[in-house]
Amino acid sequence: MRRPFTLLIAGVLLLPLAVTTGSAASGPAPGPITVDSVVPAPAEVVPSRAAPFRITATTVITATGAAVPVAEQLAAALRPATGHPLPVRAAGGPAIELRLNAAADPWLGDEGYRLEIGAGGVALRANRPAGLFAGTQTVRQLLPPQIEATSVRRADWTVPAGVIRDRPRFPYRGAMLDLARHFHPPADVKRYIDEISRFKINYLHLHLTDDQGWRIEIDGWPRLTTVGGGPGTGVRGLGGGHLTQDDYRDLVRYAAERYVTIVPEVDMPGHVNAAQVAYPELTCDGVAPRPRTDIRVGYSSLCTGKEVTYRFAEDVIRQLAALTPGPYLHLGGDEAHSTGHADYLAFEQRVLPLVARYGKIAYGWQEIAEAPAATGAVIQYWAATRDSPPVAAAAAAGAKVVLSPADRTYLDMQYDLLTPGGLHWAGTIEVDAAYGWDPATWARGVPAEAVLGVEAPLWSETLRDYGRIEFQAFPRLPAIAELGWSPRAAHDWTSFRERLGAYGRRWTRRGVHFYRSPRIRWS
Amino acid sequence: MRRPFTLLIAGVLLLPLAVTTGSAASGPAPGPITVDSVVPAPAEVVPSRAAPFRITATTVITATGAAVPVAEQLAAALRPATGHPLPVRAAGGPAIELRLNAAADPWLGDEGYRLEIGAGGVALRANRPAGLFAGTQTVRQLLPPQIEATSVRRADWTVPAGVIRDRPRFPYRGAMLDLARHFHPPADVKRYIDEISRFKINYLHLHLTDDQGWRIEIDGWPRLTTVGGGPGTGVRGLGGGHLTQDDYRDLVRYAAERYVTIVPEVDMPGHVNAAQVAYPELTCDGVAPRPRTDIRVGYSSLCTGKEVTYRFAEDVIRQLAALTPGPYLHLGGDEAHSTGHADYLAFEQRVLPLVARYGKIAYGWQEIAEAPAATGAVIQYWAATRDSPPVAAAAAAGAKVVLSPADRTYLDMQYDLLTPGGLHWAGTIEVDAAYGWDPATWARGVPAEAVLGVEAPLWSETLRDYGRIEFQAFPRLPAIAELGWSPRAAHDWTSFRERLGAYGRRWTRRGVHFYRSPRIRWS
Repeated sequence: MRRPFTLLIAGVLLLPLAVTTGSAASGPAPGPITVDSVVPAPAEVVPSRAAPFRITATTVITATGAAVPVAEQLAAALRPATGHPLPVRAAGGPAIELRLNAAADPWLGDEGYRLEIGAGGVALRANRPAGLFAGTQTVRQLLPPQIEATSVRRADWTVPAGVIRDRPRFPYRGAMLDLARHFHPPADVKRYIDEISRFKINYLHLHLTDDQGWRIEIDGWPRLTTVGGGPGTGVRGLGGGHLTQDDYRDLVRYAAERYVTIVPEVDMPGHVNAAQVAYPELTCDGVAPRPRTDIRVGYSSLCTGKEVTYRFAEDVIRQLAALTPGPYLHLGGDEAHSTGHADYLAFEQRVLPLVARYGKIAYGWQEIAEAPAATGAVIQYWAATRDSPPVAAAAAAGAKVVLSPADRTYLDMQYDLLTPGGLHWAGTIEVDAAYGWDPATWARGVPAEAVLGVEAPLWSETLRDYGRIEFQAFPRLPAIAELGWSPRAAHDWTSFRERLGAYGRRWTRRGVHFYRSPRIRWS
Repeated sequence: MRRPFTLLIAGVLLLPLAVTTGSAASGPAPGPITVDSVVPAPAEVVPSRAAPFRITATTVITATGAAVPVAEQLAAALRPATGHPLPVRAAGGPAIELRLNAAADPWLGDEGYRLEIGAGGVALRANRPAGLFAGTQTVRQLLPPQIEATSVRRADWTVPAGVIRDRPRFPYRGAMLDLARHFHPPADVKRYIDEISRFKINYLHLHLTDDQGWRIEIDGWPRLTTVGGGPGTGVRGLGGGHLTQDDYRDLVRYAAERYVTIVPEVDMPGHVNAAQVAYPELTCDGVAPRPRTDIRVGYSSLCTGKEVTYRFAEDVIRQLAALTPGPYLHLGGDEAHSTGHADYLAFEQRVLPLVARYGKIAYGWQEIAEAPAATGAVIQYWAATRDSPPVAAAAAAGAKVVLSPADRTYLDMQYDLLTPGGLHWAGTIEVDAAYGWDPATWARGVPAEAVLGVEAPLWSETLRDYGRIEFQAFPRLPAIAELGWSPRAAHDWTSFRERLGAYGRRWTRRGVHFYRSPRIRWS
């Protein structure tokens, strides 16, 4: 028996999208459109009783111009399991047609899409390639889970009939990966990009530096990576490494092909022990501290009274800005417990504007909110409390806020105290807790208009290998993705739980190591 | 190949106790006495080249008077694997002879023993039954690991020849088990007593009450256990329960037979949420708080301005004192963050003396040190720092101190961040960290004379079942036991690591779920 599925459309209409219970089921022919496995939930779904579209050996994917790369990616995703050739052509049929609107549809914006599915074809429309890409992720989720197989499967390759109109609630839907505490090679970061982009996550924030490791090559400061690229919190040879600038450029390119924008972070003035081990002149006494592999925080600080500190910061900011096509450059700023408060504010007043000088928007953890320069920045709210008067004040003065409350979005928190790996300093976070909050109203005093979006950080103290990244991220990352993408009125735990339970088969089929939460009935 | 084993005797002589390398080995006959598996290390070991004692079908265990129950326990421990009858008799031979000294040997004190082993017999002498019991634990560890089997095994049941003279460094060597966060039934507590008494642990501190549960029946306050005996931090029906007064008496008796003294703890004025759920009059506003299952601390407080608080405290103290033959009654006193500081001191000044009124010695976590009444008490040092001026001042004024530094002795801390279960707020603790400190000099300003001993607390937030108790306790509990029992000069990581590695086979044979630390070469 399939359970009835309902979805709010534009927050007004409540429609039963699938009522294919045992008695109502009509043989092998699928019913009207269902979004059983679609995560995040689309903004509007209008089911149809018409016949579905069926992918066959004669199906083509049509696209021209800027739509072609997206079409090629869709074809590559659908060919292995279907075994069909699915050529990408300018025209033809029966087709999955990807087309950019000649005149922009204002409702769709840059990332929205419209999907119309009938027996004759699938028409996907968007203003921009990012919207087409989002729409293709929905198409993949509308197909049976066997579509995830890497070799030919027998299945009914139908896409149910109906119309979906969809767009994101917030422009920023991020994931963060900490490469400092355990370095993970570019191939693993790409696998993570593959997975998160399926859920319409559009920013990947890379935490590139911390006390235990410095992971990005900086010209003129070679020891940052040759000395500072050690094991992080890793043991027995795990955890070390760094990205060359070529590696970083390649990651940026790979992510952009999936409409994910890389946000680089270099954390300062705290969390700099690895840099100071490499360059002792960055300490006030000029003495190199010992390398650290423990998980403590708050003990290191750049020397805010030395000019070399600002030469260092500007070199790093200038090079990262040049390497990064995306709009944001994250300067950390958190937990600088060993920097005097006045020194901290003076430091931020001097370095935050450097980001703008090199053409980027400054971004930092919420502690930067007290610096006047933060009013032009993006502030990442991470406290496990709903009150931060400095953030509220900065938002009132013009700052944008990304919500990453630690007790809801930190993917490194354990699911419960017995799940292996992860920390629990902000509590444990089961998938229902990750889902059960509203980014627009969470931080008291921060109005919805100031909220740029949400982000799910994944700190890597316990992430010894890629499997542990997946285990911590899934299924909580899709919860955060839905909070960021889907309209508030579509947020519904019962619906999400059902869709996630159905989605699990897709992870299983492609070998994703996810946490089988007891709160979910996995199908 | 067996590795050479050396041990300091009385801190002066360094003797090779076993040099049975490949070339020196002389066939199946064992060499001189070795203490390869003896944990904690005995104070003095004098090996002999004489023939060993062999347990055979004709061996008897001889004992009279108060030595008989200890002899019966030894016989019961040796019969299953040897298959020999090992009758306990007043006289006869060849014998393992247990005898209380007619005239006390001052060096041995109450818990020391002398063990002389030759081909003709084993002579175990002590001033008191507790010393005989300690000596029988050493005898068990001198036999081959097959002795742990529960059915007949073929092995060379020899005890190597030599003389051991042994006594504890500190009079208090404790383990603590938290029954509040997860209740564990008496049968599991007894299994834990069996295991810890092998390592000459002589106190078991039971943390009977906390925010999440109240686990001891108190006459006149029935709701403490009927309402307050809930799941603790447990889920899905686990974690609930309580001890009746009869259960508690039975545990006290069972422990005493193994020379383990129960120390009951009722925690106040904080950590009392479960009591307040049951009896809202214990709050200042008279309103029942919600039951708690999370792991937070510091939010609850008895109302120090109400007389009912002191009636409650006195009822509990009077009944526990009557139920407890041991000298100590622990009143908690930790983390009372919701009690005003002056109120806290006034509360302790009033309740600590109640313990003496009912014939016991007051005992509390280190926060009590600031109350003047604590100078007559035992103070349990738990901070993960080596400085506590209030504890130093109380010790100077006469208080005794038990060392339980959280970053060394808390068995609920994870071994590393990836071991399942356990917390890590005080850091991770591998077995070498648990072993590598000295209780006599750890707390700055607390002189060695003020140190009563050591204790290894095991908080139960993650202890869903008995296997998890074992996993957290072993092999770290033996490390703490050796710090508490063996002379300072015998503390040696290399030696401990070798003996622990050999001991592991005994845990394996009796099915103890221990952590196979990568720092140990398990044989």
